[in-house]
This record gives sequence, C-alpha cells and structure tokens, in this order.
Amino acid sequence: MKKLINAIPDVVKEQLEGMAAAHPDELKVHFEPNYVYRADAPVAGKVAIISGGGSGHEPMHGGFVGMGMLDAACPGEVFTSPTPDQMYEAAKAVNSGAGVLFLVKNYTGDVLNFETAAELAHGDGIPVQNILIDDDVAVKDSLYTAGRRGVGTTVLVEKIVGAAAEAGYSLDQCSDLARKANQYGRSMGMALTSCTVPAAGKPTFELGENEMEIGIGIHGEPGQKRMPLTSADEITEMMAMEIINDGAYTRVVREWDRDAGDWYDKSLTDAPFQKGDKVIAFVNSMGGTPVSELYAVYRKLDEVCKANGIEIVRNLIGPYITSLEMAGMSITLMKTDDEILKFWDAPVKTPGLRWGV
Amino acid sequence: MKKLINAIPDVVKEQLEGMAAAHPDELKVHFEPNYVYRADAPVAGKVAIISGGGSGHEPMHGGFVGMGMLDAACPGEVFTSPTPDQMYEAAKAVNSGAGVLFLVKNYTGDVLNFETAAELAHGDGIPVQNILIDDDVAVKDSLYTAGRRGVGTTVLVEKIVGAAAEAGYSLDQCSDLARKANQYGRSMGMALTSCTVPAAGKPTFELGENEMEIGIGIHGEPGQKRMPLTSADEITEMMAMEIINDGAYTRVVREWDRDAGDWYDKSLTDAPFQKGDKVIAFVNSMGGTPVSELYAVYRKLDEVCKANGIEIVRNLIGPYITSLEMAGMSITLMKTDDEILKFWDAPVKTPGLRWGV
Repeated sequence: MKKLINAIPDVVKEQLEGMAAAHPDELKVHFEPNYVYRADAPVAGKVAIISGGGSGHEPMHGGFVGMGMLDAACPGEVFTSPTPDQMYEAAKAVNSGAGVLFLVKNYTGDVLNFETAAELAHGDGIPVQNILIDDDVAVKDSLYTAGRRGVGTTVLVEKIVGAAAEAGYSLDQCSDLARKANQYGRSMGMALTSCTVPAAGKPTFELGENEMEIGIGIHGEPGQKRMPLTSADEITEMMAMEIINDGAYTRVVREWDRDAGDWYDKSLTDAPFQKGDKVIAFVNSMGGTPVSELYAVYRKLDEVCKANGIEIVRNLIGPYITSLEMAGMSITLMKTDDEILKFWDAPVKTPGLRWGV
Repeated sequence: MKKLINAIPDVVKEQLEGMAAAHPDELKVHFEPNYVYRADAPVAGKVAIISGGGSGHEPMHGGFVGMGMLDAACPGEVFTSPTPDQMYEAAKAVNSGAGVLFLVKNYTGDVLNFETAAELAHGDGIPVQNILIDDDVAVKDSLYTAGRRGVGTTVLVEKIVGAAAEAGYSLDQCSDLARKANQYGRSMGMALTSCTVPAAGKPTFELGENEMEIGIGIHGEPGQKRMPLTSADEITEMMAMEIINDGAYTRVVREWDRDAGDWYDKSLTDAPFQKGDKVIAFVNSMGGTPVSELYAVYRKLDEVCKANGIEIVRNLIGPYITSLEMAGMSITLMKTDDEILKFWDAPVKTPGLRWGV
C-alpha cells in the first residue's frame, strides 16, 4: 500500500487537521465527534445544509463546506458511515433556528444513521428533513444499498441547494429543490483500477490488465459487468446511453412529516431524459484518472448528448466524488430548469468548488 | 496501460477538443499548430502571457488560459516540448500590441524552442520577453535540463503575472514580476508510483512496492534518491527542510535586450528563506494522489513552516502540475510581498483556477 499517510488509525483525523489548517476562512473542524462546519456558522436566518458519509471521496463532503454550499459535513472512517452523534452534534452546531436539511446518499448505514440523528434533533425541537440522493443507474441494488446508490448527483445537489439556502429558501423549499434535483440527476461510473482502503492494506478488488468494471460504486462495490478495456469513446457512449435511455424510475423514500411528527413513505418517479432537455454534465475522476483523460470523455459525451437532442448548458470536470486513488470516471447528467441554473451559477466559496467570490 | 484514451496519436488532440467543447467562455483551441488561447484574445492594451510545454501536466498549462492568467498555452505531445511555430503563431494571435511574455519552464527543448519563437516574433516587430522558471531544489542538472527544473512555481507565476497583466502592467513590469516570483519560489517533488506515457505503453520507471523516489521530476526523471517508503510526516519534513534550508542559488539566464536587439546573459541569485517570511504554500498532487493525502501533507508542512518562523499566508492544494497518473506530490513555497499577494488574490477565471468571478 503506497499512500502519504502516517498511522492508519489517524488517517481521517490528520486529513481533517490539514483541512482546518488550510482553510480557516471557510471552515472549522470539530473532533469527537468529527464534523466539518462553516467558519461563520450558524448563519442567522439560513437553513443549514448538512451532508456526510464515509471518508475517501474527497473533496466530497468536507471540501464542500463554506459559503453557498454545505454548513456541515460529517466524515465517517474511510468508506464507513458516520455515526448519528456526528450528524446530531453538527445539526445543533449549525442550526440557526431555520432548520436543517440532511442530504443523504443512499447507503443503508448512512440512511439509518441520518434518520436516528434527525430523531435526536427533533427531540430538541430542531426542524430537520432528510432527502435521499439515489442517482446511480448502474445497479438496482448493491452491496451497501437497497435501490440505487447515491453518487455524482450529490455534488450537484449540494451546490444547488446550498445556494438556495443562502438565498433565503425555507426548509420546505430547500427540501423540494433537493428532491427535484435528485430526480433530475442520473449517473454511472466505471473503474480501471481498484483502490486500497488504508485499514485493509490491499486492493478492494482485482481487475486484470485488460479489464475494466462498468457500473462500479464509489466504494469499489461491484458494478454491472467486467469487460475488456475498450476506447474512451466506446466507454463514454455506452455509459451516456444508459443514462439517457434510463426509463422511469420509481423508489419509495422515507421523509419526515412535521405535522404528524412521524416518518412517512413517499413514492417518487423520475421521468426519463427527453429531447430538448438542457443538462449539467459532470465528468468526475474516481481519483487516479487525470483531468486530461476526463476531457477526452467530455468531448465524446458532448457529441452523444447532441446526437440525442440533449444540450449541455453547464459542466463540471474533475475529481469531486472520488474513491481514494481508484482510476476511472463517472458521468452525471442533470436536467435543469431556471431555478436549478440560477442556483448553480450563484457564488460558492469552498475548498472544493469556488466561483463568484 | 489502462487509460481513457482512443488512438494514441490522437490523445492530445482529443483532450484539446474536449477542453474547447467544455470551456467556450474561457478559451478556444487552434489546431496545427496547436495552441489554446483566450476566447477574447487579443485583449486590447494588455500584455499577453504565454506558456507551454509538454502535455501530461494538466491542468497546466491549457487549463490556466482565461481571464487573469494565461492568454495562450502551447501543448506539445506528452512530455515533449512544443515546437517554435506553436509559440510563434500563438504570440501573433494574442498580441494586442502591448507585447508578449513567454514563461518558460527550464527544460532544454522548451528553452530553445521558446527562444526561436521569440526571434520569429521579433522579426515581425512583436515585443517578446522570455522569463525562465527554474525552481526545483532537488537536483542541480537533470535528464532534460541544465540547471534546476521548472516545476510548481510555474503555476504560481502564471497566476500572479497573469493578474498583473490584467491590471495593466507593461511588458517590462510583467517580466520583472515574473523574474522575482521565480526567484521567490522553490519546489521539490516525490513519487510513489510511475506514470505511463501513452506512446511508450509501459511505466517510465519502476519503483518497488516499498520504495519511493525523492526529488522526482514531472516527467518521471530520476530524482535525488530512492528510499524506503516512510510516513507522510517524515516525507513532508524532509522535503520542506530541503526547500527552507536551500542556500543562495545562482544561475545564468538568457533574456532579450530590446535596445541592443540581442540576447544577453544575466546572472540571478535567489536568497534563501528567512525567519519572518510570509509564503504561499502549494501542495500539488502528481496526478494519482488524492487530495485527502495532500491535506495530511499540508498539516505537517504548516507545522514545519511555523517551527522555522515561516508563515503560510495563502495556499493551493490539489492536482495542478501533474505527471499523468503518477502518485506522489510536490511542495512549493513562494516568499511573498504586497505586490505578489495583491495579484495572487486578484480574480481569475480559467478551467483550472477560478475565484472572484
């Protein structure tokens, strides 16, 4: 295992210490329980946006804490769900009174722990809503997930809803926007190489010299299929077409009914992409793939979208939701409308995404 | 070789096509000869800043084309110097009449070709100055270089001088600032793994499972030494102390004397770092090392700087001057003053660096 680390039990802590040292204007770090939070939190009158999940996907989520994006992020150990006390303590720390939105990637541990944290916060009278992100079209169920996994769309939802909260959206409005943005986003990933979790010390999986894994998860969970490595164009077209042709997708999410004071199940169906859709295209490195290769992918993705009557109106290209040093990439397309574009374009100042300030 | 590419001869062309498709607001790409240039070039009254070098170091240089940084970038084949016609044609395309500054990393091919390009431009009456970037303290001479190699400081110089040109600095003022910023910057790199040049198809060098290379170049050129892999803290301290303790360094650079109409040799000596210096700290991924590990390095670098009376007042952390998918990192420290900080903080809008707009 070749990594720039010290003792394995200190990996997450020391990375967080580095972030705190590097970005005092944007964020602070609380240890035990661990959470990253906005330097100026709580921001008076603003809904607080919190996300979190296992570490190893940096800059997501801690790198997206700051003006215009997250108020707090709760990092678990590498590829391990954070615990409810992290989210609960973070919620108490950043709640200004306007309530807290939990953006939860669809992994069983994350979902359960964010629900427990919400219940603890409700007990304190803090309004909290949980919105699920589940955008990975590759697999129906997976190693850590019932239903679709939450992947690239998460980054876009955090940016968009973060800007909306900054602009004064209420908790219900932020929740509606997050739900819509998730329903508008679809993703798929692939891997050329595995990654190595520090505590494991060996690669999560093995791929032959001429093999790739299509539909990989961000923890190295198995995807759709292994197949011989082919050209960037063929890979891009195959993945883009799965996203574009994905049918209506229905899942049941669990959200909080504030009036009834209880969880309720809600069925949500995503409409497929259509000719004329304007999208944000996000080409993401899984960590080890350099940005130059992402541009080769983007070139073909742009072609495929055009050929299918879909117009890319914004893009994001780089390593934003990674799997440690895994080589590979993911593609996310998110349908947009005026509301989504307005908040995508709004200023953001975080270590991982910054423009307008 | 596992890469997201199509045919090997098309690698650079297709990456440039992807950039052009992705960033039409910032840049355009001219093919044959290849150069990336500002979408709004030439910018009236502004000195044009041009850099270039082999491809494979993305986002440098093409990703730094845009408002507040480069007017043009000339990408060679992977790890291969661009040709004089690229720089000459780029200079003609972006020169507004205020002249052109070539920022040249110290590799023999780059230096010679930028000199030839300058001579061609001088023949057309375009004022051009060549400023050398040579900041790598690891080795005295190297595989492709007489003297120190140009590495991480290049990114910082491009940002700082790009902002100065935007603010109306003359060609001589830009040249003076670039020379000073280079003299204020020192870097050192290390590798955990090799990279693979597409045309070669196999790793540039081999490192054992427990080995690392200290002082590596950005083309995989040999460094100072191979040694057993040790902790992030030990590696960081070793490299930071070499930078901080580096003595007065003298080299002879070749610049253009406009009055005499000829090249002349100029001896320049860099002063060592001193207690009380305020620096920009740049922790760079060689490509395959994830940002999370860079934060572990930054944490220790901050400690080492403090212990030596050096204050980090700005930082840049991420993959900015890479070696394809090589795992490893480099550290750059640049002494600052009010002029440098003012231009570092100025707005920039490029695919690779963006803030303030």
